[in-house]
Amino acid sequence: MPSFQPVRGMRDLIGQEAQAFTYIVTKARKTANLYGFREVITPHVESLDLLSAKSGEEIRQRMFIFKDLGDRQVALRPEFTASIARLVTSNLKNEPKPLRLFSSGTVYRYDEPQRGRYREFWQSNFELIGSDKPEADAEIVLLTNFLMTNLGLKYYAFKIGSIGVIRGILNADGIDEKTQNNVLQLMDKKDLDSALKLVDSEKCRTTLKGLINIKGENWQETIEKMKSYLEYYDEAKIAVENLHLTLNLITESTNIKLTLEPAFARGLEYYTGMIFEVYIPQLDIALGGGGRYDRLIETFGGEPTPAVGCAHGIDRVALALQIQGTTFELTTEKRVVVIPITDAVRTQAFKIAQSLRLSGVAVEFEVMGRKMVKALEDADKRKIGFAVIVGERELKEDAVVLKDLVNRKQKQVTLKNLVEEIKN
Amino acid sequence: MPSFQPVRGMRDLIGQEAQAFTYIVTKARKTANLYGFREVITPHVESLDLLSAKSGEEIRQRMFIFKDLGDRQVALRPEFTASIARLVTSNLKNEPKPLRLFSSGTVYRYDEPQRGRYREFWQSNFELIGSDKPEADAEIVLLTNFLMTNLGLKYYAFKIGSIGVIRGILNADGIDEKTQNNVLQLMDKKDLDSALKLVDSEKCRTTLKGLINIKGENWQETIEKMKSYLEYYDEAKIAVENLHLTLNLITESTNIKLTLEPAFARGLEYYTGMIFEVYIPQLDIALGGGGRYDRLIETFGGEPTPAVGCAHGIDRVALALQIQGTTFELTTEKRVVVIPITDAVRTQAFKIAQSLRLSGVAVEFEVMGRKMVKALEDADKRKIGFAVIVGERELKEDAVVLKDLVNRKQKQVTLKNLVEEIKN
Repeated sequence: MPSFQPVRGMRDLIGQEAQAFTYIVTKARKTANLYGFREVITPHVESLDLLSAKSGEEIRQRMFIFKDLGDRQVALRPEFTASIARLVTSNLKNEPKPLRLFSSGTVYRYDEPQRGRYREFWQSNFELIGSDKPEADAEIVLLTNFLMTNLGLKYYAFKIGSIGVIRGILNADGIDEKTQNNVLQLMDKKDLDSALKLVDSEKCRTTLKGLINIKGENWQETIEKMKSYLEYYDEAKIAVENLHLTLNLITESTNIKLTLEPAFARGLEYYTGMIFEVYIPQLDIALGGGGRYDRLIETFGGEPTPAVGCAHGIDRVALALQIQGTTFELTTEKRVVVIPITDAVRTQAFKIAQSLRLSGVAVEFEVMGRKMVKALEDADKRKIGFAVIVGERELKEDAVVLKDLVNRKQKQVTLKNLVEEIKN
Repeated sequence: MPSFQPVRGMRDLIGQEAQAFTYIVTKARKTANLYGFREVITPHVESLDLLSAKSGEEIRQRMFIFKDLGDRQVALRPEFTASIARLVTSNLKNEPKPLRLFSSGTVYRYDEPQRGRYREFWQSNFELIGSDKPEADAEIVLLTNFLMTNLGLKYYAFKIGSIGVIRGILNADGIDEKTQNNVLQLMDKKDLDSALKLVDSEKCRTTLKGLINIKGENWQETIEKMKSYLEYYDEAKIAVENLHLTLNLITESTNIKLTLEPAFARGLEYYTGMIFEVYIPQLDIALGGGGRYDRLIETFGGEPTPAVGCAHGIDRVALALQIQGTTFELTTEKRVVVIPITDAVRTQAFKIAQSLRLSGVAVEFEVMGRKMVKALEDADKRKIGFAVIVGERELKEDAVVLKDLVNRKQKQVTLKNLVEEIKN
């Protein structure tokens, strides 16, 4: 019989890798807490209507779509934002704004698998809903920065842009939304020539070309150059002013490495303002990103509601931690094996194991029925710190033998003192 | 536009409910740690071949099955055990036994939705692989007991039985596996008459009927009665002996409420020995359960490997906590709003917010651009403890106004002392 494999593009996480995921999710949840984001949990399966409403043709074509037994067209969520927008327009409709909502879990896209890219992948997701202010944009970038620092990532940098500026220019030129989406998608793929070909007006093309060609490490210079190109674009001018305020808030309130890229676009169609991504030098895929989406909530039947959000790719963050050799604190409980010498003391040994756990000691009970020497060999191999050996003779004195497997010492310890001896 | 809804049978968890889930998963992970179980993360989507190999006709018919874009027959996992068995026969094949593996997450069954029963539901899952000893069975029951106690559940009880005993009788009668599965399924549904009709031999039917009719609160009595029925069934006799040892280990090492039910069966086909479920009096569906499955691993192409495991329904445990009015510790960080009085101090206020978070204070920044009075009203409504009001005058003295929203007091506090003032 051939052995079973995970479905192509999906994977098992074991050992250190699984620990890294738990570590990252825990840190993300902590960040959510410190920034006042409440956790919400939504289904992995949503109606196709919802998921395809506004996520962009590219993602639509890569969804896992199927019918459930009730003949409903459903799909595995390719991201969290549509589900959150659904919540905001239903259950949370009457709650005062702003809403700060945090989620984490798996999302699904039928991509060609490669390093850091899987068909099932994990995200932590933050949405700040109800504010159109630069403070909100800045908060989303800052919390991402906070999370990355807190995880122990050493080198990483932000790339920031504004879909608001680009759409402002295209709107002024009267370009319809569908074409705008195509332009943005081509820009996302860095196919700038093809993107410009979709723009009819000479003036608009020149302006975009100008933005695309702005270079420079210093964001203050870049934003001044952007402004100089946008003198005659009222909407884009407001967008660039907002971007400027956002960047001021971000850079003046914390140390952060960022570049401003006027031609930066992202795959999702719903962005309307500031967008960003975070990178490490050793990986060419982003660890996370997000942006402002002021018209998405109304698409789902809600009031017009400004919003900004972000998601972090946990698989990629885990990879980044590994690449940069970042160590993270593992569980620190002392690990102990409890071994009964004979069947006669098995129940007693079981009882001792149980009371150790109640005192916060991690215990593996010898369940293989092995002789003591074998069981000790095995514990040694698995780098367990202590063995508690339970024998009839010692039990008569309410004691056991505690063996320090690292220092190869052993002594008789009373049950009363056992936890203390192990913990010190 | 009609508002979007979750897919039928699935649900959103918000507020207290989402917190309960995180609380339960955290406790389950802690339990895993204390019992020496390592966390593994497997995909939500698995090949249909894997999932239907041994999970029973009933579950097979209720799976979410579909084809991915690569034309693979896949399904959403209806439980964890098949994925774990896959791991054990592939990635973990060469690791020394016993393996103790913990997982948590969502699983999927197309059931008729009702209270405590959803089409997407959450489980914590524990598998102990490689031991055929009663210690292993006892450990699985005990860790479930440990988890329930640790969660703060006040009243709950275990129901214990043995598929090993029942199969032992049916094997002695030469009944084929398929019929055995049908018998067990009917017994699971409490349709005992129909179950008995599938058994040809008079002797075997009498023995089963005898077991079914054993009543009594005291498990010691029950097990003696079971033994008296099984005198001529070698395989069933070994199973009942093992069950006896398991029950001794469980009851002598901890306080636990349990009943032994000789006719107790469970829906999954793969059980071969001890099975159990845990209940609260107020709910007729189990909060969790599990059992021994000594032949599953070989079905997946591995060596013959004894194993025992269990899963806990997190949705149901959350419901049980709610029904019993169990309170759980919520996040204890102090919650603070930071409000800049004017735009001129916005960046400074942002900086203050950021440094509070670094000191572990949960901060919501005023991102709506509201005037102070409005912002305070809102904070009050949402029961936030403190407001930090940032104004130009106070900033000149490196200070802010700290307003205690509960006691309605306010005072000027220097930035240096701010964290301390909030924390005390």
